[in-house]
Amino acid sequence: MSYYKSLNVLVNPQIAEAEKAIKEAVSQRKTLLVIGNCWVHYLGRAKSKLEQGERILIIKEDGSILVHRPVGYEPVNWQPPGCIFNVQTKENVLEIRAVRQKPAESVKVFFDQIQLVSAFSLRDSGEFSLYASEEDMQKAILMEPSLLEEGFNIISYEKKVEPGFVDVYGISKDGRLVVVEIKRKVAGKDAVIQLAKYIDAIKGKANREVRGVLVAPNIAKDVQRLLATLGLEFKALDPRKCAEILKKSEARKLEAFFKEGTSQ
Amino acid sequence: MSYYKSLNVLVNPQIAEAEKAIKEAVSQRKTLLVIGNCWVHYLGRAKSKLEQGERILIIKEDGSILVHRPVGYEPVNWQPPGCIFNVQTKENVLEIRAVRQKPAESVKVFFDQIQLVSAFSLRDSGEFSLYASEEDMQKAILMEPSLLEEGFNIISYEKKVEPGFVDVYGISKDGRLVVVEIKRKVAGKDAVIQLAKYIDAIKGKANREVRGVLVAPNIAKDVQRLLATLGLEFKALDPRKCAEILKKSEARKLEAFFKEGTSQ
Repeated sequence: MSYYKSLNVLVNPQIAEAEKAIKEAVSQRKTLLVIGNCWVHYLGRAKSKLEQGERILIIKEDGSILVHRPVGYEPVNWQPPGCIFNVQTKENVLEIRAVRQKPAESVKVFFDQIQLVSAFSLRDSGEFSLYASEEDMQKAILMEPSLLEEGFNIISYEKKVEPGFVDVYGISKDGRLVVVEIKRKVAGKDAVIQLAKYIDAIKGKANREVRGVLVAPNIAKDVQRLLATLGLEFKALDPRKCAEILKKSEARKLEAFFKEGTSQ
Repeated sequence: MSYYKSLNVLVNPQIAEAEKAIKEAVSQRKTLLVIGNCWVHYLGRAKSKLEQGERILIIKEDGSILVHRPVGYEPVNWQPPGCIFNVQTKENVLEIRAVRQKPAESVKVFFDQIQLVSAFSLRDSGEFSLYASEEDMQKAILMEPSLLEEGFNIISYEKKVEPGFVDVYGISKDGRLVVVEIKRKVAGKDAVIQLAKYIDAIKGKANREVRGVLVAPNIAKDVQRLLATLGLEFKALDPRKCAEILKKSEARKLEAFFKEGTSQ
């Protein structure tokens, strides 16, 4: 089978045998898995030591490295892409060292027993598509109010008014109050009626003009008519766009976490 | 060898063969690796789809699940510990479904070709010790000013004064200004002199009493004498304690990231 060309599996190899396979995999920029008894030293802006235990080491094609314990979804040690690797054996202990320059950080993984070495060239060009929840759409608007319209300013969100909670409540460029109701799917009549109730409740108190904007990926024609009849507006917003905005922000957050180095 | 008892490796198995091994591994709460061509659907508070590609699936003993692409240090899909798994084959496609109840979330991984299935019982009780950097010690004090002393309040940090930047600058319970200099290792004479310079610079401007506190894991006796001579104080602080404080906070941040589900 052709798979054998791209996949090397060593079960319970000797250290010398494992060293050879690991060096080859790293130099060929393959994705590498090593499972065995290891200990880990991390030195950089912080410092950590992980005592002996059986774990999974993953080195990816891009030079990122992860050490996973048998429990917990977070890696116990890691480095982002771009590491340079050095593999050597001393007194029958295999040392895999991953080094980064900026900031200067190194992770050393020492194996004295290896259960599995597996190196493979993975083909992966599949696209990842993310669709946001209503909550995510709300968050995205809070982060970037211009998603609703230019010059929109947030006053509050989840604002309690008599019939329930207004998703987003703000003020438009020309100073008018704006009540925003968000739907993740095609907006139906229920959403319009809900929005109209909020507007009524707020108009009663605010004694000034209040705009109502229904935000959704799209809207049915008859619902559009009802909206117009009630003097309300529709703003098309793709949940995926919101998801991308949040993803960027979350990625920054995760990146910040990983870059801290403090949890190593 | 006894390893074979705890390790099962299938290379290029048929789907039916893989299904059997995966079911067994999951029911026995082993750590499971599956490498192959897959696509992933996530549905929960958000929704995502990952198109076909070759990836690494990890299911851990605690019921956490991770899908790793050949690049990037973050998992593309994941769920925290406590998932319930369902494994089945339909039309020669193996589906591994991980479900959580609160919040209701499911990750479905579909494999149509499998290169490796590996199940093993990893023994890992090794302790993880984290030692903080000076920056981490500073952050910990900013997060919990009482680490310095009861009633300490932060005014600023990295405050520029003539000779450089003060690590932490605050006010004590009795209203006196406090300049804090942090060292990660045993504090030496240089640190004391540095602190004395900051105090002088601030006294010159503030025209009020200024306390200087050197924070470090410990201090040499002769340095302690110099400190006393200059009217400065020493506060012992274990970098590990700071690291633990940050680790908890970072863990919460990462947990928040993972729990968001928006980056799936």
